[in-house]
Amino acid sequence: MKITANNPERKSWLDVDTDSDFPIQNIPFGVFLTKDDITTIGTRIGDYAIDLAALHQLGYFEGIPLTDDIFMQDTLNDFIADGRTTWRLVRNRIAEVFDEENDKLKNNAGHREIIIFKMSEIEMLLPVSIGDYTDFYSSKEHATNVGTMFRDPENALLPNWLHIPVGYHGRASSVVVSGTKIRRPLGQTLPQGASKPVFGPSKLVDFEVEMGFITTDANDLGKVIPIEEARTNIFGMVLLNDWSARDIQKWEYVPLGPFLAKSFATTISAWVVTLDALEPFRANGVIQDPKPMPYLQEDGLTTYDIRIETFIKPKKQQETLVSKTNFSYLYWSISQQLAHQTVNGCNVRSGDLYGSGTISGPDKNSYGSMLELTWKGTKPLVMSDGSERKFLHDGDTVIMRGFCQKDTFRIGFGECTGRIKKARKLELDH
Amino acid sequence: MKITANNPERKSWLDVDTDSDFPIQNIPFGVFLTKDDITTIGTRIGDYAIDLAALHQLGYFEGIPLTDDIFMQDTLNDFIADGRTTWRLVRNRIAEVFDEENDKLKNNAGHREIIIFKMSEIEMLLPVSIGDYTDFYSSKEHATNVGTMFRDPENALLPNWLHIPVGYHGRASSVVVSGTKIRRPLGQTLPQGASKPVFGPSKLVDFEVEMGFITTDANDLGKVIPIEEARTNIFGMVLLNDWSARDIQKWEYVPLGPFLAKSFATTISAWVVTLDALEPFRANGVIQDPKPMPYLQEDGLTTYDIRIETFIKPKKQQETLVSKTNFSYLYWSISQQLAHQTVNGCNVRSGDLYGSGTISGPDKNSYGSMLELTWKGTKPLVMSDGSERKFLHDGDTVIMRGFCQKDTFRIGFGECTGRIKKARKLELDH
Repeated sequence: MKITANNPERKSWLDVDTDSDFPIQNIPFGVFLTKDDITTIGTRIGDYAIDLAALHQLGYFEGIPLTDDIFMQDTLNDFIADGRTTWRLVRNRIAEVFDEENDKLKNNAGHREIIIFKMSEIEMLLPVSIGDYTDFYSSKEHATNVGTMFRDPENALLPNWLHIPVGYHGRASSVVVSGTKIRRPLGQTLPQGASKPVFGPSKLVDFEVEMGFITTDANDLGKVIPIEEARTNIFGMVLLNDWSARDIQKWEYVPLGPFLAKSFATTISAWVVTLDALEPFRANGVIQDPKPMPYLQEDGLTTYDIRIETFIKPKKQQETLVSKTNFSYLYWSISQQLAHQTVNGCNVRSGDLYGSGTISGPDKNSYGSMLELTWKGTKPLVMSDGSERKFLHDGDTVIMRGFCQKDTFRIGFGECTGRIKKARKLELDH
Repeated sequence: MKITANNPERKSWLDVDTDSDFPIQNIPFGVFLTKDDITTIGTRIGDYAIDLAALHQLGYFEGIPLTDDIFMQDTLNDFIADGRTTWRLVRNRIAEVFDEENDKLKNNAGHREIIIFKMSEIEMLLPVSIGDYTDFYSSKEHATNVGTMFRDPENALLPNWLHIPVGYHGRASSVVVSGTKIRRPLGQTLPQGASKPVFGPSKLVDFEVEMGFITTDANDLGKVIPIEEARTNIFGMVLLNDWSARDIQKWEYVPLGPFLAKSFATTISAWVVTLDALEPFRANGVIQDPKPMPYLQEDGLTTYDIRIETFIKPKKQQETLVSKTNFSYLYWSISQQLAHQTVNGCNVRSGDLYGSGTISGPDKNSYGSMLELTWKGTKPLVMSDGSERKFLHDGDTVIMRGFCQKDTFRIGFGECTGRIKKARKLELDH
């Protein structure tokens, strides 16, 4: 089916700034709460949120096989489960309805009032109910930096890394939508030189710049998703900040991996940008040597050219750009990740989230975590107010922005933000 | 509220064998499919399955605040979310309805026909929709055995182990109910002495004898569950087999922990036995030295005396007992596990599953995995037909049985079983 929604010539009768992340060619999906306290599935054009449940009820999806309540939901899961043909039909239709040549809704003030909100009038919610959250570790530069700092600079990359898209299971319950405040976690840490751990607020709270993809119901237990079918089962992508408490992580992570150092929160951006919308920005992946095993081999444009900028904004201060990276720096592609996830027969469900792992590039300013940017705190970042940061302070807001751009044509993800709140008082624990 | 359902003197008007796991004092909860293809929440007395939706509809829960459809569900999640007072009211009432002194249902043949099924007539389903599955690593003997075999016998236990109930996130999508067949996984492994990995069926498929507890909605993100409130938030327990592919695990697990070596399947028993039903079997925990941090300190009877026997049944052969262990061997308690899980503010939801980790005791026949029982395959187990097992063969069924017993009074879990099917053909991958 042709993705007519991607037509770069199309303009909308809704106002869209030229540098907006959300031109009529984007048409992402999300869930929001209206000013009347109704939860609905919606999309966004420019600074307008569009209530798809209302659009459906008023007949604008006529001819597309959709259940009556498919958009009257508090998650995208059921819509995603309907599969790629449905996503495409719906995106194509939305593009038509808001095309500047189409008068039907444009000239119906009554309908417009029910369907269209200003972004400032609504509240974005977590777009999916996440059954499982896997976090991969697919940046060679990140894995090398971490291996250099914590293990052996001569053998920074572990033997399995070039053969396997290494990943681990993350906590799904604590994935939150952009804007949610993040409580600094308490936990056990082992101070430098000490023989016994201490308890208290983490002193080394960090961000990790990642992206995540969201799947549909893809396979039954015991079946695989062959790599050539992987992309068909991926609905779209989000920005993802995998908050990390480095001191808790260091003490707890052997031998079973990160646990409480990560499970206090993971933030994702509110709008899921479809793979279809990202199609014009497919790009060459990194050359893989050694050649991956057959179940991980793929041809063509395996990645996406997505620029990601990360800022720190101290309380009541201006934001400072601290990292400029690109999704295409990753060594392992999303198809390889999904093929690997299922090669043992593990089943994948609608709404599952798959993080890329921290995205670090070759340049020092393209690293995706403070751990790397400050090189374990030895080279602090300088904020616009002159203050320094080795790791995050209470009150700091981390802002990630991601977008694809060719000339003046941009498809973006909006923001993925979170502010660090001070830790709970210790006496509340005992 | 008094747990009158636990009255050890009570007898039911339903036939119950003296050695049944399910006397009227048990009253576990599960989900089943009736012969009429209706999914319902139920309980079990002896070899009878009781349809709680029908019992409710016919008025037997009168006076207990329950929504009309609370038992007309395909998971226990909503019922569990109702909280401990409701669980107790319902269990107490079920005990009354089936008490041999109570004629109401006993003498109503029409109602009995709608409510009561033989176990052979129904099909048990997965009892909960699992939001998150954490697997702990709480047996000191197991951690020591693994550390001795794979790392350093002199320092078998890692430095954090006596301070932290070490755990990691598992895969929720592939948790299946007892009886589900398990496909031998394919994956990457590094043969002994090789420099490059190979792809194929795992040669070292193992079981892990565990128990799991299931929580209610316990805390919001950023809040903790203090250890003294942990038990209030635990609905009940199940037997759990954490199937493991040791060769895949060895190659993939550094540095982020087990992933595909575990995510091909985890089996749980079908009936969730409530903590209330286990109350008569509370027992002293292991003495903990060093003393845990304050947030992990608890007094009294911190564990349960639950015997667990594991059998291997080769295809068309008799079963052979291979392990006899006890839940009370575990070093860390369920309260400590849940307090630790949430000390960083991680939120816990209704239906979440928490595995104990492999339960190994001090004696060699109390080890909870073939890895330990055969000491890395060096001491094969002998089956009743004379064949030997280093790890599981295709066609082998693993059967776990668990129960508490004082004199002739028994509360049991039934079985947790799964048979290994041969791996998918390689050419199906490409």
